[in-house]
Amino acid sequence: MTRQELVNVLLKRASGKPGTRGEAFAPANIALCKYWGKRDAELNLPVNSSLSISLGKLGTKTVIKFSKTADKIFLNGKPAPKAFAARLSAYLDLFRNEGQFFEVRTKNNIPTAAGLASSASGFAALVKALDQLLGWGFNPRELSMLARIGSGSASRSLYEGFAVWHAGQRADGMDSYAEALNREWPSLRIGILEVSKARKKTGSTEGMNRTSETSELYESWPKQAECDFDELRTAIAAEDFPMLGKTAENNALAMHSTMLAAWPPLCYWKPQSIALMQKVWAAREAGIELYFTMDAGPNLKLLFLKEDQAAVKALFPKVQVVNPWI
Amino acid sequence: MTRQELVNVLLKRASGKPGTRGEAFAPANIALCKYWGKRDAELNLPVNSSLSISLGKLGTKTVIKFSKTADKIFLNGKPAPKAFAARLSAYLDLFRNEGQFFEVRTKNNIPTAAGLASSASGFAALVKALDQLLGWGFNPRELSMLARIGSGSASRSLYEGFAVWHAGQRADGMDSYAEALNREWPSLRIGILEVSKARKKTGSTEGMNRTSETSELYESWPKQAECDFDELRTAIAAEDFPMLGKTAENNALAMHSTMLAAWPPLCYWKPQSIALMQKVWAAREAGIELYFTMDAGPNLKLLFLKEDQAAVKALFPKVQVVNPWI
Repeated sequence: MTRQELVNVLLKRASGKPGTRGEAFAPANIALCKYWGKRDAELNLPVNSSLSISLGKLGTKTVIKFSKTADKIFLNGKPAPKAFAARLSAYLDLFRNEGQFFEVRTKNNIPTAAGLASSASGFAALVKALDQLLGWGFNPRELSMLARIGSGSASRSLYEGFAVWHAGQRADGMDSYAEALNREWPSLRIGILEVSKARKKTGSTEGMNRTSETSELYESWPKQAECDFDELRTAIAAEDFPMLGKTAENNALAMHSTMLAAWPPLCYWKPQSIALMQKVWAAREAGIELYFTMDAGPNLKLLFLKEDQAAVKALFPKVQVVNPWI
Repeated sequence: MTRQELVNVLLKRASGKPGTRGEAFAPANIALCKYWGKRDAELNLPVNSSLSISLGKLGTKTVIKFSKTADKIFLNGKPAPKAFAARLSAYLDLFRNEGQFFEVRTKNNIPTAAGLASSASGFAALVKALDQLLGWGFNPRELSMLARIGSGSASRSLYEGFAVWHAGQRADGMDSYAEALNREWPSLRIGILEVSKARKKTGSTEGMNRTSETSELYESWPKQAECDFDELRTAIAAEDFPMLGKTAENNALAMHSTMLAAWPPLCYWKPQSIALMQKVWAAREAGIELYFTMDAGPNLKLLFLKEDQAAVKALFPKVQVVNPWI
């Protein structure tokens, strides 16, 4: 099935009428159990289910209107870079009538493409804004599937708080959507440690492909991921923070391990990443309940509880603390 | 079977008479396919076969005599540290008659326990020196098995050049010995990049145990290792350097990957290790046939051919180049 065929199936369910404007915000999300490997590259269907936490107010705000002559794409107030605009217009092709163009104004309050998942919040916000503009009246699951074909992890950015993205089994991907866990954990905090803002040399999709094709250790990944997914759900239900932290950190390190064992080796880490990891491990040995996760990039995202915030800030003065619940 | 029982079986094959002195040198060795995981901890029987290259003149020289009252152990001209002396005396217990003591003078010309495998050359030199002192008249396979129960990788340090250590299948380990490959590759060079001389916090045996017990990705290791072992033998027979380099580097990164995915995470790397790896990858992208391997430590061992030695020295002014063939 092609992406266009999937979109056509969904558009048949649309109920409302087009308006003149859509505006939406979607949060960035950080996976605690990572999306790493595609069972279908065309439809962005994942090998394994994943679980994330959204970053509250950090994310993307997008306004969309119709445009008369051509697509006009703005990023953070300026005409968007070519590659960004081209990717967005290609996505809009899936939805436009003949001769229909869009004006899209999108703003990120997180760094773009530094492993902080701005494509996730970007496609999620775009889909929500499109739903308003075109009057689809879709439910979150349907929006999640549309976001997914823009960027896999965008499926999870439809939601605040914890979200799970079901891998599903169907070839058409109609069972591969995200949904909210609806469990608040008010004391949970995220700390962003930025090692580099630079755009990564190897994008996530290329990284996934190289890993699944060449890394012998990738064979063990799907089993670990499904196991971690279940453990995290259990940890969240029980508010068991050490279990959550351990599982998330181990999952991230296992993902990076599959990359390091690929050929050519894929290493998103910088020397500073190792220094920060070792600082986290030393803090934990000293009794602080502090864990980290990392996406396909050099930055660390700390996981800790509100009561340890002062200790974490003392150890990492540059940390940007995010309260996912506001 | 215990180590003592294995020693007793072998000692029944001894043919000569004790002398008054033994003196032997054994080279350090660097595994191109790593020994990582034990199928029998008592007998140091490995999960997978491994393949190494010995470091020529870098290694351990040991002189052994009888001592009247107690073991006297010297390391690099000074009374050996307690832990070192205790490990050595415990090993000598396997061979001593009642009331028999030894004086052992051992010298390393490589750093001790910085991932440069001085325990490998140490036990290999000791076994060769013991063979002279006690007049066993053992062949290299038998000496290799005795060295193995001192330190697994010592089984390979009995030989110059390339050596293979067969994992074997027998419970008594009598098929788990190393032998020389007897293939010279005169243009092959090793470059040692020392990141740290510090003794590692987690020893290899503890690291292997933690990894095999807790790392989900370790499940894929034995298959990869056996595959790499075969590839390396093919590469050596064909003198195919890119194949040798790629397989060795991938094998080392896969081993470190299994550790990173253990719990607690096991990371022998320092920030400088990542910086050096990235420098190797950049050199390769620039067209230099340069690869690396790493043991359970932060140091890199470069692999390259004689014709690239000047380029490698220009890139890494501190590299210590080893010609394994002299």
